[in-house]
Amino acid sequence: MPRKIVIIGANAAGTDAAAAARKTDREAEITLITKENLGAYSRCGLPFALGSHIPRFEDLVVYPPRYYDMMKYDLRLETEAKEIDTKAKTVKIQDKNGKEEILQYDSLIVATGSNILVPPIKGIDKKGILPLHSIEEGRVVDAMIKGGASSAVVLGAGFLGLEAAVALVERGVKTTVVEMLPYVLPRLLDKDMADEVQKMLESKGLRVIVGRPAEEFIGDEQVKAVSVAGQEMPVDFVINACGVRFNVALAQKAGVALGETGAIKTNPRMETSVKDVYAAGDCAETINLVTQRPVVPALGTVAVRQGKVAGINAAGGYAIYQGTLCSAVTRMFDFEVGVTGLNEFFAKRCGFETVVGKVVSKTRADYYPGALPIRVKLVIDKESMRVIGGQIVGGEEVTQRINALSFAIQKQMTVYELAKADTCYAPPLNETWEPMVLAAEMAIRRL
Amino acid sequence: MPRKIVIIGANAAGTDAAAAARKTDREAEITLITKENLGAYSRCGLPFALGSHIPRFEDLVVYPPRYYDMMKYDLRLETEAKEIDTKAKTVKIQDKNGKEEILQYDSLIVATGSNILVPPIKGIDKKGILPLHSIEEGRVVDAMIKGGASSAVVLGAGFLGLEAAVALVERGVKTTVVEMLPYVLPRLLDKDMADEVQKMLESKGLRVIVGRPAEEFIGDEQVKAVSVAGQEMPVDFVINACGVRFNVALAQKAGVALGETGAIKTNPRMETSVKDVYAAGDCAETINLVTQRPVVPALGTVAVRQGKVAGINAAGGYAIYQGTLCSAVTRMFDFEVGVTGLNEFFAKRCGFETVVGKVVSKTRADYYPGALPIRVKLVIDKESMRVIGGQIVGGEEVTQRINALSFAIQKQMTVYELAKADTCYAPPLNETWEPMVLAAEMAIRRL
Repeated sequence: MPRKIVIIGANAAGTDAAAAARKTDREAEITLITKENLGAYSRCGLPFALGSHIPRFEDLVVYPPRYYDMMKYDLRLETEAKEIDTKAKTVKIQDKNGKEEILQYDSLIVATGSNILVPPIKGIDKKGILPLHSIEEGRVVDAMIKGGASSAVVLGAGFLGLEAAVALVERGVKTTVVEMLPYVLPRLLDKDMADEVQKMLESKGLRVIVGRPAEEFIGDEQVKAVSVAGQEMPVDFVINACGVRFNVALAQKAGVALGETGAIKTNPRMETSVKDVYAAGDCAETINLVTQRPVVPALGTVAVRQGKVAGINAAGGYAIYQGTLCSAVTRMFDFEVGVTGLNEFFAKRCGFETVVGKVVSKTRADYYPGALPIRVKLVIDKESMRVIGGQIVGGEEVTQRINALSFAIQKQMTVYELAKADTCYAPPLNETWEPMVLAAEMAIRRL
Repeated sequence: MPRKIVIIGANAAGTDAAAAARKTDREAEITLITKENLGAYSRCGLPFALGSHIPRFEDLVVYPPRYYDMMKYDLRLETEAKEIDTKAKTVKIQDKNGKEEILQYDSLIVATGSNILVPPIKGIDKKGILPLHSIEEGRVVDAMIKGGASSAVVLGAGFLGLEAAVALVERGVKTTVVEMLPYVLPRLLDKDMADEVQKMLESKGLRVIVGRPAEEFIGDEQVKAVSVAGQEMPVDFVINACGVRFNVALAQKAGVALGETGAIKTNPRMETSVKDVYAAGDCAETINLVTQRPVVPALGTVAVRQGKVAGINAAGGYAIYQGTLCSAVTRMFDFEVGVTGLNEFFAKRCGFETVVGKVVSKTRADYYPGALPIRVKLVIDKESMRVIGGQIVGGEEVTQRINALSFAIQKQMTVYELAKADTCYAPPLNETWEPMVLAAEMAIRRL
């Protein structure tokens, strides 16, 4: 009898789980269940499609339909998983016509992802307020702009909120971001770095309001204005990017244990508390490699890694996922923002005594045209002298600098080692003294 | 009595040594001696100025003259150090008018750099054959092109040779690179990666001849043709980029010991065999961090680091330089080439049993316009499973990927750790699976 693997969710975690399961067991019967009307697509790409960097929303679809056939997956579109019975090892599903079916599984992977949090604000249910979490929603916003919508508010200044706001500005929409917390990217950056990002965003024409919540959405059926700090801002539409909330109700109802974060508790094999039930992606907890505490990163890079490990194990193989540094990066207008490990604020909250090293440098030799400013902040644990976090804001090669710092943190590099580290240079590509190395020196001076 | 520090050489190593010495001892009398008629400039920038990426050759000058005054350096331009007396602790110098002077020193830093090797080829002393090693030489080549010179041969396909050749092609000069060894960048890359570089160069119109030496330079006074493999190539000029040879004659004559590489032997404090005599930059040996054997990297990044350490120690401070991975990068046309640690060829020659991991991927999400191909090769030591080398050829962010691999090698990351490493992603900036991580996976499959 071939092994039956059922995967609930067919996005980053789900499809990577399926691919890994297929590689591990060529005979397995693999069923992928998704509520949407198409297979995996890049959610992270939505703001970039909205901003017209990517020509069409359908370009975000990762695989053509024949891929699912070739991999011998049973892909169930527009189908909802209604109930898991972990004793009988079954999942009850329902298709768009209301038809129910019971699927038997040997291994189940819960990759139910997350949704955008709906904040308890008066009028939040009005028309014209929507998340940017699916291709469908992307197309709705796109159509509104094409239809003449010219002003918007974005709720939330996390990566998704800012990326969406940047896309709107690029499309000519007068846009204001409203962030309740006191600075942009509040969970990612420290205030000093966030303030730089805010300045750069404002210089491009994005209005940013921080430290104030949206108080009310005004209008009859359709939102017409947003009230912030007592002032009414007229808007044509609102994008809700308040944050994500993991979808765990289905698993919880089936008796799968949640962790202290509220997401599904997993071990390094991505096993849940219930035998033969795995979890991966935005709905699953993992371990922060610095704090060794549970965390829910909601990152595509983590989702594919967890999915792969879950898929291998679900198919009878052996793999582990040890955790994450929540390394993340994005590009906004002509600059990039990246982060890995702990920021200063969070490190202190976790009980670390920290020293920071900060530097502003350039991305190319001083005399080479096109050199852009780059700002590096390192967070050092004073006890061990180890690098435990990095934040970078600037114009070029931020992604791979974050990866370099990620490697350094994972291998417990001290600030002294980083200050001596071998780095490469050429006039069009870097300074002789790499900014990360200079930031390490600045930290050492403050020890 | 203030400490007297004499530094022979005023380029990367010399000026960084001076700056570090000044920070360490504000009262020291610091004398910088250079044969050239100007202070420090970026030699690495010469090909990029020749290629008109940098508007003027004088842009390569690092500091304005007032900087030397501000730092209270005694900068002796157009002055040659003729003799070092390590017993009397003096240096005999001679200015451009032939006037000699004896300088007393407490600490001496030898930063005499390197010159371009002149290969023993018939006719090598003809006019029109010149290195690209100084601003003056850069201006001569520039003037020849402006004067109508339209064909050239470049001897040597190292970084300098290829960078110079690319600049010539960009200036419209019909150019052939002649490399005696069997592939381009022979000391840096393995043949498989070098062949990719050669293809990319040829696709841009650069002619490349490998595995053949230039046999003769033909012409009366002025070079008119180069004979390679029995064929005569007519040329207007030749750039000699055959490699560099460290300038150690002065130090050697003074009794300073040379190491097994032929360059000046140093310890981690950049001390030579003679008390109070330091060496830094292209003339000084250092340690390869993987092999723990002496190496002479001839890299700007190493020169400034060695210079800094020599300067601190020469001024009574304490600093060490532990060695290098010879991490290096460059940009040619629209692609980049980077390397760190050992290549496969050299690793085997050093006695390592190796496994390699190779991957061709893209620099952005598949659907994001402008994604460029990137090729990563990792060299793994089979015994320890450690990453000991990396080579990358591609379009974007090669520099910081090399730095990330450099950190990984320095911290003895295994291929298993790299395959699990936390990396960051955003559609315009990377794939969800970072190519370095994929290359590690490929290596694991071959173990």
